[in-house]
Amino acid sequence: MPQAPFSWQLRVRFSDTDASGRIHYTSMLRFFEAAEVEFLRRLGIEYASIENEHTGYPRVHVECTYTGAVQDDDVVDVEVGVERVGRSSFTLRFAARVRGKDSAHGRIAIVCMDRETQKSRPLPETVAETLGRYAAECPSAGA
Amino acid sequence: MPQAPFSWQLRVRFSDTDASGRIHYTSMLRFFEAAEVEFLRRLGIEYASIENEHTGYPRVHVECTYTGAVQDDDVVDVEVGVERVGRSSFTLRFAARVRGKDSAHGRIAIVCMDRETQKSRPLPETVAETLGRYAAECPSAGA
Amino acid sequence: MPQAPFSWQLRVRFSDTDASGRIHYTSMLRFFEAAEVEFLRRLGIEYASIENEHTGYPRVHVECTYTGAVQDDDVVDVEVGVERVGRSSFTLRFAARVRGKDSAHGRIAIVCMDRETQKSRPLPETVAETLGRYAAECPSAGA
Amino acid sequence: MPQAPFSWQLRVRFSDTDASGRIHYTSMLRFFEAAEVEFLRRLGIEYASIENEHTGYPRVHVECTYTGAVQDDDVVDVEVGVERVGRSSFTLRFAARVRGKDSAHGRIAIVCMDRETQKSRPLPETVAETLGRYAAECPSAGA
Repeated sequence: MPQAPFSWQLRVRFSDTDASGRIHYTSMLRFFEAAEVEFLRRLGIEYASIENEHTGYPRVHVECTYTGAVQDDDVVDVEVGVERVGRSSFTLRFAARVRGKDSAHGRIAIVCMDRETQKSRPLPETVAETLGRYAAECPSAGA
Repeated sequence: MPQAPFSWQLRVRFSDTDASGRIHYTSMLRFFEAAEVEFLRRLGIEYASIENEHTGYPRVHVECTYTGAVQDDDVVDVEVGVERVGRSSFTLRFAARVRGKDSAHGRIAIVCMDRETQKSRPLPETVAETLGRYAAECPSAGA
Repeated sequence: MPQAPFSWQLRVRFSDTDASGRIHYTSMLRFFEAAEVEFLRRLGIEYASIENEHTGYPRVHVECTYTGAVQDDDVVDVEVGVERVGRSSFTLRFAARVRGKDSAHGRIAIVCMDRETQKSRPLPETVAETLGRYAAECPSAGA
Repeated sequence: MPQAPFSWQLRVRFSDTDASGRIHYTSMLRFFEAAEVEFLRRLGIEYASIENEHTGYPRVHVECTYTGAVQDDDVVDVEVGVERVGRSSFTLRFAARVRGKDSAHGRIAIVCMDRETQKSRPLPETVAETLGRYAAECPSAGA
């Protein structure tokens, strides 16, 4: 049965803004990161339990397109989708809205990495399965 | 006559890192931004003189691929190239190296915007010309 | 009738941490700032309505003592108190706890400033009155 | 023979500013941190060689007073002094100037900590000696 797409709300803080009077563009990426952590938590995946001295999850690619101004104290709604689940990496998709209006959308690719060899390693099975299931149930989330 | 590609060095600060022990991935984008400002200054373009209450230069698209770990106190060398100069926007290309090793590369698209209408407007002529000249003289900079 | 001290919860994000594995010490000050804005909002004061092209509210002094480690994904509870309300400035007091344990406490002095002269000017009356009332009702909040 | 006080120059970046049009007040503390690292390096002390899995150097207290506006692209000159060298901690003093005008001054107390017990431990002898010597030679640096 399809579930509703996951979304997470964050309020823009003064320290997220810059002298343009709007948020600094990297702040949106930090919002995506917070939404990602809460999205995974909702799916039952905590970085604290899959990340350790052997295994890390660095970002290997990020993309974001900015379509509307976001200002101090705005509440940003970030919807999260799963674009792709590979053998050793996955790509999440994000769509940010302020008062219902598109503000930004982007994607982030995260790889499961062996900290010693600095090479990729297979995703934990439950992670791959859980993300794959969400992708199937909410194919257009974050788009 | 071809000129050497512009590059700018920055040292990673402790506040640029995260609990992974390496820089937070958004720090690299702030490094690109510093390199951009110094690149434009070298070409004789200061944001202070082209930006005002009527005209802004927001980022409309950013992309970055991370290929190597960057750590606290590392010196990052960021080379800057001009990928495209349009009527009302331009795209810069960035390649970051640490001790000669590729660490990240990306691109940022910047639009010249009328602050009142929030619509794009033509780039100042000298900006378009200066960037176009650098693109012709250093076609592979930042690649 | 005394009211309960105001407190605000924030979750530590990965971008708030540094390579020590704990939050960067300036992140706590950003948490205080978020708590301040929500505290003022609860009291009916919005910066958006008291701040404008003539009047700003810069911080003129900050102090913070760190007493316990705060880590990624911890939930920080920030209690806010009013230490002093002057003619043209006020000082807020903050106490941060993680799982009931003291993590940090500090104070921030904020001045009402005339943007043109860059000099202080009297606080709006309702701001002074509202803060003074909270100080009287919750004398030990944030201590 | 007295030496000249150490100072370090940093340029304000757009990401250091906020919607007030000036730097966010926590940016000054990051500038102090960069100046601290370069100051210690000049004295022959590198965190990389005194910090390890057993020993950390967390900040336990910070204070800063802001006396002048600092804007995007300003060059900030941060002078560093040694206020106090104790058995297991030391306090540095910072004075920031922009175009010769005082902008901020503050102090930061740093403790040498045993990571396992989370308790303080004696400073390495060379650190204590080196800082003590600078304090004697430049008694008013950073004041």
